[in-house]
Order: sequence, then C-alpha cells, then structure tokens
Amino acid sequence: MNREYIYTEIADGIASQIRNGVLKAGDRLPSVRMMCQEHQVSMNTAKRVFLELESQSLIESKPQSGYFVSRIMSVKLPLPEVSRPSLIANNDEPDELISRVYENMGKKGITFFSIGVPSGDLLPQAKLKKEIINATRELKEGGTEYEELQGNLKLRRMIAVRSLQWGGNLNEHDLVTTNGGMNALSFCLMALGKPGDTIAIESPCYPGILQLANGFGLNVLELPTHPTTGIEIEALKKVIPQINLCLLIPNFNSPLGSCMPDENKKEIVQLLSENNIPLIEDDVYGDLYFGAIRPKCCKSFDKDGNVLYCSSISKTLAPGYRVGWIAPGKYKSKIMKLKLLHSTSSISIVNEAVANFLKSGRYEKHLQQMRRAVQNNYQNYVQTIADYFPEGTKTSRPQGGLSLWVEFDKKIRTTELYDLAIKQNISIAPGRMFSLQDQFENCMRLCMGLPWTEETQLCLQKVGHLAKKI
Amino acid sequence: MNREYIYTEIADGIASQIRNGVLKAGDRLPSVRMMCQEHQVSMNTAKRVFLELESQSLIESKPQSGYFVSRIMSVKLPLPEVSRPSLIANNDEPDELISRVYENMGKKGITFFSIGVPSGDLLPQAKLKKEIINATRELKEGGTEYEELQGNLKLRRMIAVRSLQWGGNLNEHDLVTTNGGMNALSFCLMALGKPGDTIAIESPCYPGILQLANGFGLNVLELPTHPTTGIEIEALKKVIPQINLCLLIPNFNSPLGSCMPDENKKEIVQLLSENNIPLIEDDVYGDLYFGAIRPKCCKSFDKDGNVLYCSSISKTLAPGYRVGWIAPGKYKSKIMKLKLLHSTSSISIVNEAVANFLKSGRYEKHLQQMRRAVQNNYQNYVQTIADYFPEGTKTSRPQGGLSLWVEFDKKIRTTELYDLAIKQNISIAPGRMFSLQDQFENCMRLCMGLPWTEETQLCLQKVGHLAKKI
Repeated sequence: MNREYIYTEIADGIASQIRNGVLKAGDRLPSVRMMCQEHQVSMNTAKRVFLELESQSLIESKPQSGYFVSRIMSVKLPLPEVSRPSLIANNDEPDELISRVYENMGKKGITFFSIGVPSGDLLPQAKLKKEIINATRELKEGGTEYEELQGNLKLRRMIAVRSLQWGGNLNEHDLVTTNGGMNALSFCLMALGKPGDTIAIESPCYPGILQLANGFGLNVLELPTHPTTGIEIEALKKVIPQINLCLLIPNFNSPLGSCMPDENKKEIVQLLSENNIPLIEDDVYGDLYFGAIRPKCCKSFDKDGNVLYCSSISKTLAPGYRVGWIAPGKYKSKIMKLKLLHSTSSISIVNEAVANFLKSGRYEKHLQQMRRAVQNNYQNYVQTIADYFPEGTKTSRPQGGLSLWVEFDKKIRTTELYDLAIKQNISIAPGRMFSLQDQFENCMRLCMGLPWTEETQLCLQKVGHLAKKI
Repeated sequence: MNREYIYTEIADGIASQIRNGVLKAGDRLPSVRMMCQEHQVSMNTAKRVFLELESQSLIESKPQSGYFVSRIMSVKLPLPEVSRPSLIANNDEPDELISRVYENMGKKGITFFSIGVPSGDLLPQAKLKKEIINATRELKEGGTEYEELQGNLKLRRMIAVRSLQWGGNLNEHDLVTTNGGMNALSFCLMALGKPGDTIAIESPCYPGILQLANGFGLNVLELPTHPTTGIEIEALKKVIPQINLCLLIPNFNSPLGSCMPDENKKEIVQLLSENNIPLIEDDVYGDLYFGAIRPKCCKSFDKDGNVLYCSSISKTLAPGYRVGWIAPGKYKSKIMKLKLLHSTSSISIVNEAVANFLKSGRYEKHLQQMRRAVQNNYQNYVQTIADYFPEGTKTSRPQGGLSLWVEFDKKIRTTELYDLAIKQNISIAPGRMFSLQDQFENCMRLCMGLPWTEETQLCLQKVGHLAKKI
C-alpha cells in the first residue's frame, strides 16, 4: 500500500461503517490522537482522514468537542419492497416508452437523469485525449488495419491484471474484446440462446437486456429481487427446471444498485453449473463501489467455465469509446466466431489508448475520485428527495454504481411524470421500462453520474415538485 | 470538372476501352495531335494521358510509330462458367475451414491473399492520423460521450453528398451509421429475417454473409451467378415465391468481381418491391471501379424504400476504423432500435475523423490513386497466373473491387492448396468457403489489395507452383 494514500483507506473504512449504520448520526468519532494510535499513522495522516470525511459531508466537527457523524447521512428513506413479478414469462415490451426516452439521447440542453452513464466532467478527458493521440501516432499503420481477432493484447493483459482485484485470476487468453458492454451481452445471448429458450433475470432489469432477450425470441422470466442483496436465490432455485440461461448484474445492478453477497454469488454459480445453465454476468458497475473493498464477481467462483463475464469502461472512463470485453469461459470459440461475423475487428485506436491508460496506473486514482463524486451525489440526491419529493417516497440504498431507484406512492405514474419533466428539459427513466410486465409504474431510475451543480439540484427539486402535482 | 484532372478522365476512358476489348493488343492509338483535337485539350494534357496509360502498362510506345495497346493486357484467361448451385437451401457451413483461414488474421510474416482488405500501403495513413488527432482535440468531451443515436451528422451529410455519384440522392436523415459494413449487414438480417425464412444470395458468396444468414437460422438459397454480370435474373424470378429476403453485392462483388448491368439492377429492384421482398444491398466495393464511371446502385432505382443500402470505408480508407452505414429506407426505425440495443452508439472519434477527411475533398484523389494501384495489381496477377499457374486455369474479369476469382482444373482442391501454401506463410481463400454446398472446391479468391512488390509476385508464383504439384 502506498503510504501516500493510506488516509483514503482509513477514511473509506469509516465511511463504509457510517453508511452501513454501524456508526450512526451524532455518534462521536475517535480523537485525532486515538486515530494515530489505532492505525499507527502520523498526526497529519489522521487529520487528513477527518478532512476527507468532512469533505464528503459524512462527519462534522463541533468546536471543543471533536468529530461527529453528520446528520446528513441520517437521512434514510424507506427501502422499496422485494419485487414480486409474475413468474410467467411475459413479453409486453414497453417499446414505445423506451424509444421516447432514448430518442433525445445526445441532445443538448436536457438534464439526463435517465441515461446511465457518467457525465463528461467525471472523466479524465485530457489524459484520454493524449492516449488517443499517442495511440494514433504509434500504432502500426496508424490503426487503419484490423486488429487480432481476439482483441488488443495489451488491453487484454491489463484487464487480466485488474481481475485479481475481484478474485478473477484471468489471463489474456481468457478474454475477447467487444465494442462496449451491450455488444458483449448481445454476443453472449446470441451464442447461447435459441428462440423459445427461457432466460432468468433480475426484476427490475436494465431495459437493454429485456429488449435484447426479447429480440432474440427468448422467454424472459423476471425473478424477485431484493433492493440491497439482489436476486432471491430461493426463487431462482424453483425455476431451474424451466430455464436455459441466466443473466445477472450482481454488483450495483441497474436500476436497484443492489449488490449480491459473496455467498449468494457462490451458491448461484454452483447451482447453475450443476444444472448446466450458462450464467452471463454483467459487471460494468463493479469498480464503482462506495465501500472499502471491490466486491467479488460470480466469475470469481467459476470452476468449469460456465460463467461468461462481461464488462466495459463505459461507466468509468469513456462511454463513447465503446470498449468492452467478455471472459467467455468454455464458450470462447462461439464468442470468437460471432465477433468475426458481426464486428470483424474491434477499433484499434480506442482499444490501444485504453490499454495504455490502464497501463499508466492512472485508472485507480481516477476511480477513487469518481467513486467519491458519485457517492456525494448519492447523499445529495437522497437529501433532495427527502426535502422536495412527496411524502412516502422510497429509495434504494445502492452500495455503488450509478443508479438510484425511486418508488413513489402507487398513484404517481412515472410515465406521466416523464411527460411533465421532459417539457422542462429534464429526462427521467420511468419504472415501467424495467420490466416486460405491468409493474413499477410508480417507480423511476435516476442516474447519479451527473455533476452536482446548482442546476442539477434545481432539476431534481423540479422533479419532486412535479411529482407532488400528479 | 477540374481541368487539372481532365487527363485522368481521358486516360480512364481509353483504359476502359482497352479492358473491354474495344481496343485490342497491338492496336495503334491516335497521335498526340489527334488527341488534342478530339478532346479539345493542350499538347501537354494529351502527353500526360499517354504517360498515364504507359505507367499503367496499358500502352507502349514504339519509336517513330506512336503508341500501341500493350501486349500485357492481351493476356486474358478463360472465364469460369456461370455457377450452378443446387436450388435447394443448404446449410453445410464450411465452419472449420473458415476458422482455419481467419485464425491467422493480423499475424505478421504472412502474405494474405485471403483477406479482402486493402494493404496499409494503399491507404492515406498520414492524413487519417491527422484527422484522428484533430477530432480528438476538437470533439466536445474529447469523444468520450455517446454520439447521437443515428450517428455523426457531418458524416451522414458527406455520405449523402457522395450518393449523388451513384444516383442515390440520399439526405442525412436517410442514413444510420454502424460499426463497419458487417455490422450493417448483421442489423439488416436481424431486422428482417426470422428463423426459417429463406434468403436469396449470389453464388459464390462472401463467407461472412453465409455465416450470418446461417447463424440467424435463415435458409440460404444460392442462385446461379455470372462471373461478369452477377446474379441471373431468370433464376431469381423462379424462386420469388420461396424467398423472404434477398442480399446482393451488385458492384464488384466478392469473390467474383462481377458488376450487374444497370438494367438488371432496375429490374430486380422492381421485381422484389412488387413481391414485398426486402433487398439488402452491400456496396462496399462500389467506389473501386476500374472503368470511367462509378456504377449505379440498386438503391438508385428504389422507389418505395424497399432497398437497404449498406456500405463502409473498410475497403477504401481504414478497415480498422469500423465506420459503416445503412440507408435503410422504410425499415429505418427497426434498424435504429437494433443499433441502440446492440451498439448504443458509434465511436465518435473515428466517425468524426472520417467525416472531416471526406469533407476535405481528399477522398476522391485518394480513390483515383487506389483504383489505379488495384487495377495494376489485377493486370499483374493475371499475367503471373498465365505464366506460373497450371494450364487451363481460369480467372474472373473484375471491373472493380478487390477480388479475383481463380478456377483450377477439377482435380486441384484448394483446401489442399491452402494447407501447402500456409506452410510457406502464404494465405489464400479456398473456394469451398464461398458456399454452403459442395462446390468451388477447385476455386480460390485472391485479394488484389496487396502492394505489388517482388515479395508479392514471388508468393503468387509460389501458389502457382504448389498448385502444379497437386
């Protein structure tokens, strides 16, 4: 551990205890002196820990008395219930609604709480620019030629190195690059699903997954999902005989932000493997943890190559680069064939640039900053919702990722709220988008990847104001 | 017409007459003086015409006598017959063979006659590098953000402007960008084909198309195809009641290099439209014409939006950029939905760079040079085949594009030839790859996009030598 960053490690640990409720609002923290003894650090380091926590609004100092857990984090809104979707496969795709929400993508002047990507302000744009320019200059043939089919070797190596953080232990031969994360999921479904097959997923579920599965003619079985611990294992067990495939976002899933406990991951991997049901794992949010540790992945528990691990840099570095990958386990040759057919090659320049950025070691530092920014957003969002949204509004309690799930009183329909908000150039993602059944009509997903400005705050207040009028 | 380039126009016209056999080997050309009068040009321009044709080895000067059509182009090998595939849908995909050929893609030290892309030496790499660097500097957020779903507006405008050359008259709203040409075809098949549907294609056919169609569960009907005029209309007429879709490469198709006459294009567009059968047109080779004029496209004759026009810059500018597009006619909303799902966004940087390159006006000049280089290759390939390949070898007579189709005597199996050649680090594309049936076992496709060096020549001679030993 670099001594320079030890203060962030200590601060993260305390922050995590505050968020988990181990430390409660008003609790007194140890003194600076005690902190020095406890962690064997200098006075300066101990002071930086407190400054760090204060900058995140997690603690506040009282003159002559020391530091206390801040009131702000005591704002905890009620948690939505575990979802209870119908256990019959449905395919009532909210096609028109999704088109309506996405047709504005990329337009200027709209505040997008609806699109699940980090805003440009949170990204290391200047450094990435330099990497693109260097890659263009240094790549053989200036990147005009096809890459190796499996993808940029340097990038695959860097991804393999990073996999150690989540207990992955991958090597470069295990990985195939793709044009972003959706492209990775699309290849997995294409490789493993036949029309008429049944796929088990979380509920609510990211709309792109619903549409992909529906588009390939799969029956979609939405399973009860807990807002903090993810898909319910008992529910999954019951439907094992019916399903051919399973797709999960175990870490900080969109839209709930839930994170499956390690033991659940392990149990599910084993269950699916025993029944020869491939597990597609989407880990695009895994690096955006608010706690002290990077959560493990289902792939960490994969013994026989039955897990297809998918991820990308779209949520943490550059959505517009479309750099993603699959560790397809025993399905590698199928995935390689699909890549050759549908993409031929990844785009050399962006893949080389990302590889070099990862290699430079800057990614970790960037992630630290970004995690802190998103976490601050989370606190600010919840505070604003508590202050300006209708009474009884519930929110999920994401432990990472970019999504906050909001549940209103039953009478508030978020499709209606969408129509009102978009007139004021605010875009939200209505809950109905996240299911193929009639559920979540009183819910919405908010993206926490926006910069927390007066404008953002005002827009969020407006959403609350509009909701009150419905 | 820019006066500076008028000499190339005149030269192209004469070159085309030589290639079509209107002017034959040994024929005398008009004198410089006559050329001036005939074309109303200066002595200097007329001289440049002759120099140009001489540099292409099309003509030779005889002291005191003037210019004559060169002997070299008199080398015309016999043309393969019209293909006669079985008219029952087959799906015997030469999977293992295709994998074998493509697994070496991108490896150094191999001479790739097998991969249908231009070599880096033929591409304007320095200019493209500059455009990438400029795009990275100038794009908002450095290209890290998603583009507009339909794709880069400037690029769509430039493609629309260029469509006038082939009678397309598109505008920017007609176009959707994709990650290269295969991605465009993949979206079209996904949008329009249901498993069990039947698709009509040319025979021989580009392997990627066969695999895509097969992968989507379509029945593939390969139709008789003439080596110079393309798919046989009468054959297509007969199967109309059986088919749901049609996919053609009307201009300089891979592997034959055939080019459908305009009247055939027109008739097929009308025939398919009347029967409500969508036509997917792949025009990736259209800009690489050897004659005087850019051939028209099927899309030029499309009255009701039934033609999905697909193209890319992979054969003319930068295969590694993966920049392609679709003009999907009346199927636009389906294509947009698939793009959102499977790609989310194109990659901003490369699309912006290509848009600016097209806007700079350099593309036309580059194409002129590239066409000339490929055409020279064609002549050199045919000459080498005449000199070094087994007697009785036939070749197609491409009027453009990158593919030369070679037909050996029945006893020479090109899968065997592949195995022998790859041991000498030479890769060819065996004919069996281009069908789902047992045909073309004595054929192969050669890519003409390599630089014509001693090394290339030697490798081609070696292929002939190996074929003689089988």
